[in-house]
Order: sequence, then C-alpha cells, then structure tokens
Amino acid sequence: MRPLLTLAAAEACGGAESEAMPLACAVECIHTYSLIHDDLPAMDDDDLRRGNPTNHKVYGEGIAILAGDALLTQAFEIAAKCNAWPRYTHQDIVLEIARASGSLQLIAGQVADLEGEARKDVTIKDLKYIHERKTSALLCCSVRLGGMSANCTPAKLEALTKFGYNVGLAFQVIDDILDVTQSTEELGKTAGKDLNADKTTYPAVMGLEKSRREARRLTKKAFDALEPFRGRARALQALAEYLLHRTN
Amino acid sequence: MRPLLTLAAAEACGGAESEAMPLACAVECIHTYSLIHDDLPAMDDDDLRRGNPTNHKVYGEGIAILAGDALLTQAFEIAAKCNAWPRYTHQDIVLEIARASGSLQLIAGQVADLEGEARKDVTIKDLKYIHERKTSALLCCSVRLGGMSANCTPAKLEALTKFGYNVGLAFQVIDDILDVTQSTEELGKTAGKDLNADKTTYPAVMGLEKSRREARRLTKKAFDALEPFRGRARALQALAEYLLHRTN
Repeated sequence: MRPLLTLAAAEACGGAESEAMPLACAVECIHTYSLIHDDLPAMDDDDLRRGNPTNHKVYGEGIAILAGDALLTQAFEIAAKCNAWPRYTHQDIVLEIARASGSLQLIAGQVADLEGEARKDVTIKDLKYIHERKTSALLCCSVRLGGMSANCTPAKLEALTKFGYNVGLAFQVIDDILDVTQSTEELGKTAGKDLNADKTTYPAVMGLEKSRREARRLTKKAFDALEPFRGRARALQALAEYLLHRTN
Repeated sequence: MRPLLTLAAAEACGGAESEAMPLACAVECIHTYSLIHDDLPAMDDDDLRRGNPTNHKVYGEGIAILAGDALLTQAFEIAAKCNAWPRYTHQDIVLEIARASGSLQLIAGQVADLEGEARKDVTIKDLKYIHERKTSALLCCSVRLGGMSANCTPAKLEALTKFGYNVGLAFQVIDDILDVTQSTEELGKTAGKDLNADKTTYPAVMGLEKSRREARRLTKKAFDALEPFRGRARALQALAEYLLHRTN
C-alpha cells in the first residue's frame, strides 16, 4: 500500500515512476521493519502476518530483531542513493524518512501503544495520538516522497500531506473495524486480537456504525485534499477508495 | 571511544571540533543502539553494561527494542542535519553510516555472532569476519566521518580507514583478553561470559600471550597508518594507546 501511494503521488505531480521507485522501496523497508519488530513477543506478540508465520516464528527472535534493524538501515541507504533535485535534496529526503520513523512519530506511537496495553483508561484522544504516529506519519511520508521525487511545488506537497494524514487515520479506524468483523483467514493475521487483549479501539468506544461513519468522513477529507491535482490524482483516489472498502 | 575517534580524526585533518561533533553524536547513537539490541535476551542476554543494569532490565524488552530503533533513526536525522561540503555531501555521509551499520557490515557481524553461538567449530577466520563487521566497520566509519567533517583529502581518508580497521580488530582481541582476565566489577559488564558460553575467542584459540602479541601487532599497524598526518594525529595515537592498555 505505502509504495503504491508513493508511486501514485509521483504520478499526481507529473513525475516518472522510475524516479519514485527507490523512495517507494525505502518506504516499504521502513514499514516492513516496523511490522517485524511490532510482531515480536515483547511487543504485540503476533504469530501471523499476511497469512504467514511472522519473522520471529520462522527465524527466531534474534534474527527478527536484526532483520528489522537491517531494513531500517537499508531504507536510508536507498534514500541516499536516489536521484535528488535542487528543490528536494538528499538532506530533505533523509530527514523526511528519519522524522516519520523517529522518536517523535513512529516510535512515539509504538511506545504509547505498548504503554496503553497496560492501561484500561485509553481514550479516543490517546487512540488518535497513536494512529497519527503509528500510521499517518509514514503514510504522509510515503506520499510526500512521491511528490518530492516529482519535484512538486510546496503547495502540492502540502496537499499530499493532508491526504496522507487523513488516509492514515481512516486506515486505522478501518483496521479496528476489520479486527472485530473479519475472521483470521480473511485477515491473514489473528482476528479479534484487539478485543481479546481488551484494547481500546474505535468500535469498542463509539460502536461499529459510528466508526464506519468516521472512516468515511476521514476518507472524504483525504479526497478533498486532492482537489489541487484535478484529474491527475486518479491513482491516489483509487487507493483511498480501496482502503475504505477493503476486507483484509 | 567512537565519538572521541571522530573528533580526533577531524583534528588530525585540521578540522574544527564543532563541525565534527554532530557526526560524533551520530556514531554514538549507532553504537548505543547496537549495544541495547545486542544485550537483549534473544541476542547476548546481558544484564550489565557499563556497570549498570542493561536497558531491557530497567525498561523491559519492548521499550529496549524501540530505544534501539529510535537511536538508529536518530543517527540518520543528525547526519542529514549536519553541515556538508562539496567534497563530502549529505549523500556521502548518510551512505557512510548506512553501509557501516547495514546488512553487509554491522548486521552481518551480529548474525554471524548469533549463529556462531550455536556452533562449536568457529575458527579464527570466522572470528575475524565477525570482528571486522561488528567492530571495525563502525570504528572505520567513526574516523572517516571525522575526516569528512574536516573536508580531508581522499589519501587521508584512506589512511583513516586503515587506522580504524586495525584499531577495531585490536579492540576486539583485547575485549576477548579482558573477558578472561578481569572481574565483573573491573569490566562493568559480566566477566567470563565468553568462556561460560563456550564461545570461540582469541585467548581460547591461540592462548593469552599470543593474543596479546596479536593486539600489539594490530595496534602497530594502526599507528603506521597515521604516518601521513605526522604530528597532527597525537589524539588518535593517544586513543589507540589507551585501547591497548585499558583494563575495562
């Protein structure tokens, strides 16, 4: 999903796929590293991912930790090797990835998620804090890197940021909904996990119907952000539509 | 030790400490991340580091994994924010750190170390492979970044590479020696660990005296590499001397 968003954002800004591809790969390295570490016994302790046993189930915890470390490092190597433009330099690109993945965004979200599991009083505000950092930050980064690879204007970068932020939040609300409505087989990961872990989720707090409405509201905000691209953002729109209607 | 090497290398090349300092910090972030992950139960399973309980002992495994991830990411943010020169750009600096820390160097060393623990037939050649990747790669990177921050010539960068490589190997041979000759209190980390884990070490394979001679030989090679700097590399020389004579 994230590399597709990078390529689609580049397309929306009139860029070439070949220029966006390395950054799409860097984004996927970051995402995969975060999943491998997130699935570890000391974190979410998950046995299944994308319908397959998780990394540590197959290779052991030590190798899973190192695989995540290697992918995180690889993302920066790829980013430093890509083509860059005067408007968006290697410095901008590396900073973009480092900030989205760093201690104020992705890691802060993971820490809050981990600490939330030990508490019973997690609010919707806490949940949004986590979703913004665990999901929106990297989705924003994914589309912004696509725009940067296409040498887009600052105004378009701003529009992509709004799109990525709202798609990220919508994505997480839908994730919460799917966890309670789908089977493990349909999801490709353990279903009902949040419920069993007594985790605060959107459906648990505001009910299923209201959660679905919230997901639609956020997706609409994402669509609205694409206005400046007019007809060029069809791929980005299609990806957002897919996110709203996905079943796993 | 590693940030001091960065500052000393910058000094040897006539650079300013203020220019080298961000890169010294980036190097320390990488080193500390690698220690936190290396101490985890799934890796070396160590309870003590620098005389204090290890990160996961104090904060739990989940937070220790995330602390390492955050420090690794932080290194790249710091590197991308430093000043850069036409000769050594942000691209060069980020690539330098990514390669030394990546799947062909630091991570490859950790994987080989982890796999070696399960085997009884680790040779001196295997051990050197591990030391080159687990230690020399980052020590090389530390001094090279110092040289880069001082806008040094390619010949001087080459000399720093040789120095860092040999200091790294010497450092590890001495680490092996200290593990069998010093107490836990003197080391600030658990002594005799390699011996108890039945790990292949230099003293175990070639004996203490030969290991000490090997450390001296490697340190001499490191000193010889500093010849092009003449009188300017006194701090680098002092650090190498300290490494050979340290007791913890």
